[in-house]
Amino acid sequence: MFEKVLIANRGEIALRVHRACQEMGIRTVAVHSTADADAMHVRLADESVCIGPAPARNSYLNIPAIIAAAEITGAEAVHPGYGFLSENAQFAEIVEAHGLTFIGPTPDHIRLMGDKIEAKRAARELGLPLVPGTDGPVTDEAEAMKIAREIGFPVLVKAAAGGGGRGMKVAESAEGLREALQTARAEAKAAFGSDAVYLEKYLANPRHIEIQILCDTFGTVVHLGERDCSLQRRHQKVLEEAPSPAIDAADRARMGEIVANAMRKLGYRGVGTVEFLYENGEFYFIEMNTRLQVEHPITEAITGIDLVREQIRVAAGQPLGFTQDDVRVQGHAIECRINAENSETFAPSPGLVDTYHAPGGLGVRVDSGLYQGYRIPPYYDSLIAKLVVHGRNRNECIMRLRRALEEYVVGGIDTTLPLHQRIARHPDFVDGVYDIRWLEALVANRG
Amino acid sequence: MFEKVLIANRGEIALRVHRACQEMGIRTVAVHSTADADAMHVRLADESVCIGPAPARNSYLNIPAIIAAAEITGAEAVHPGYGFLSENAQFAEIVEAHGLTFIGPTPDHIRLMGDKIEAKRAARELGLPLVPGTDGPVTDEAEAMKIAREIGFPVLVKAAAGGGGRGMKVAESAEGLREALQTARAEAKAAFGSDAVYLEKYLANPRHIEIQILCDTFGTVVHLGERDCSLQRRHQKVLEEAPSPAIDAADRARMGEIVANAMRKLGYRGVGTVEFLYENGEFYFIEMNTRLQVEHPITEAITGIDLVREQIRVAAGQPLGFTQDDVRVQGHAIECRINAENSETFAPSPGLVDTYHAPGGLGVRVDSGLYQGYRIPPYYDSLIAKLVVHGRNRNECIMRLRRALEEYVVGGIDTTLPLHQRIARHPDFVDGVYDIRWLEALVANRG
Repeated sequence: MFEKVLIANRGEIALRVHRACQEMGIRTVAVHSTADADAMHVRLADESVCIGPAPARNSYLNIPAIIAAAEITGAEAVHPGYGFLSENAQFAEIVEAHGLTFIGPTPDHIRLMGDKIEAKRAARELGLPLVPGTDGPVTDEAEAMKIAREIGFPVLVKAAAGGGGRGMKVAESAEGLREALQTARAEAKAAFGSDAVYLEKYLANPRHIEIQILCDTFGTVVHLGERDCSLQRRHQKVLEEAPSPAIDAADRARMGEIVANAMRKLGYRGVGTVEFLYENGEFYFIEMNTRLQVEHPITEAITGIDLVREQIRVAAGQPLGFTQDDVRVQGHAIECRINAENSETFAPSPGLVDTYHAPGGLGVRVDSGLYQGYRIPPYYDSLIAKLVVHGRNRNECIMRLRRALEEYVVGGIDTTLPLHQRIARHPDFVDGVYDIRWLEALVANRG
Repeated sequence: MFEKVLIANRGEIALRVHRACQEMGIRTVAVHSTADADAMHVRLADESVCIGPAPARNSYLNIPAIIAAAEITGAEAVHPGYGFLSENAQFAEIVEAHGLTFIGPTPDHIRLMGDKIEAKRAARELGLPLVPGTDGPVTDEAEAMKIAREIGFPVLVKAAAGGGGRGMKVAESAEGLREALQTARAEAKAAFGSDAVYLEKYLANPRHIEIQILCDTFGTVVHLGERDCSLQRRHQKVLEEAPSPAIDAADRARMGEIVANAMRKLGYRGVGTVEFLYENGEFYFIEMNTRLQVEHPITEAITGIDLVREQIRVAAGQPLGFTQDDVRVQGHAIECRINAENSETFAPSPGLVDTYHAPGGLGVRVDSGLYQGYRIPPYYDSLIAKLVVHGRNRNECIMRLRRALEEYVVGGIDTTLPLHQRIARHPDFVDGVYDIRWLEALVANRG
């Protein structure tokens, strides 16, 4: 096992990795920007190295500075956390080239899944279900019509070169498709200089369901159930729960097996998450994240498996020591991402935390670098705390979430705690009937 | 189910009960002394009533004031917590006489187990093993010698009217017994005015092992494994763990069954703890606590059962809804009692908590009414926080405990955190080889 690990990240995830290391008897090296000198991850680490000023490109994304910090301190491995360099294949290669261990998958797997087109191609080959659609651009209207009938309406017309919703139209019927093709092409031409479009099945009310996997380097692959991350605003997850209220045990086992087989075929190592849209009983691959997810604690809560510990163990060449048969999903867990933002306008709210009191008691976990007197710098992601609650069932979990939210005090700045309180008491949430558009609508209604 | 519960306690246990109520949708009434107006349990409760000044006899032990508070606020039930009025049979009777529900066992059971002599008699009738000894006082030396040979040396000579170690002598052999009898009688005569003594088996290095039980009013009785509370100083528990490193699965099942059968025979209701000394594979009944224990969270951690919720459900006349077969012990849990005391001199250290930061992350639970800026009043028990950690096994649990202790910051006052750090790193503790005298010796060596 490693004696010293460098944590190439900040905030709650740096703290999370530090804790796992400490519990394994591994010494930790924190890196930090000048803006983060007072951060909790720096205070708690065994050693720390300043790697440059904010913004992140001059410090947390500064590969030479991070490698130098590892070499100076004698760290043997680097944990990238999430975000920053965690899905940068080149970083993983440079780490390995310096004789250090990258705590994560191979650079090739990071690269493969980082390219959206290649990732979808790989997913198909690995047996993962994709959203039905055209393989390449469609130029002929008659051909488009034929394909649309095969897929079934509604279909989505998307600019091949597109992004951000431009050159994207929904066609509900054959008549609508003609118009959608024309409009999408015109918009695509204007926006991207190319009128190439392609078609895919339009999912009106999907949920975002992702499956956690964990693989060692000896061929053992386990799936750890799903997380429902449908509660999103502007494609940012806000609250996640596990298991999903929409997935039954049969679907869980079936999809878990499909994903585990895909990972076995791929020869993947470490933790990873395969994300799907889910509608009418069908799963559709979106992408794979080749890193620890923000929302990993809810999987830890329902499986009892410490994902960061397992990541580190796998990176050190140890076998998992358990198999799929040993994995049992117990109870229900919910995570709230608490951001330093106004809960109605979502304007960032960095600054001095003049009061801080985290909830405690049975079934409550808080992952946060906050402390009373800490000044949140304005340079980074607004996530300041994760509140994770676990209960024997979903109802108990929701009740526990409500009481924990009521206890949580963060003073001096705006936070999204009021939004979470609103969600936790909303009848739709209580009934588990929501999709990826639900939160956007809730927020729009108030704002 | 109750709509409103009055919590007749203070500090972390008042908060614990409040949390359980909130999670069940029950409104809470806090009572408090004038010294506790700023306490967390008062801040979080739905309503609060001041019931008098410190010390406790004028407020938390003031039965008329508490009953009046329940009547004024329309509470339907009273939870006594631990300490204060929790084992006061008269209080339970008065509560019931006012048409309120006492969340606890019957007054008769409280009274029975509160009388040490009666409790031992009952324990024998219920089939619980006792420390072998004479039933009544021994006057004749020859008879004493005969009994001592039956029990086996060493034997303890105890003043029948005694307490606090006076009139108590250990005899290692027949010769020693003669002298012990004389000395004990003389001391007893001087201290208590009676030279009546009795004999019992002397346990040189026992552990304190207690078994948690939970009973509904429909005849369902479950035992929830044992807790090892051997780490004591001056008969006060300091750190508890579950399961005990000294008890194997067979002994756990066997003693659990014996205790469950005893409770079934007794017709007990609610939660209770049967305490034993344990030496050389044998259990010896000490006493039964007819209330929630301070250390109940470690049982919650390893069983997943919310004991306060179950207490309230049983009091409301609901069935448990599970049986012994559903109870599974998972992993290992340790609780540290953090006191506002100097960790070497044990001098009380009330006052202003000028910095407070509780540990978080996976497997860590904190039950505490502390917050930064809180002034600990000098009138009450020095327990200010309970740190409870859970891991998949004892080693993981100890490593997690160490890292959580390192994160814990309580500034402005002295606490016993350094003592817990010392225990958590001690080889004897790591090996699980300690008895009820171990901590006393450790502390004496330093002090």
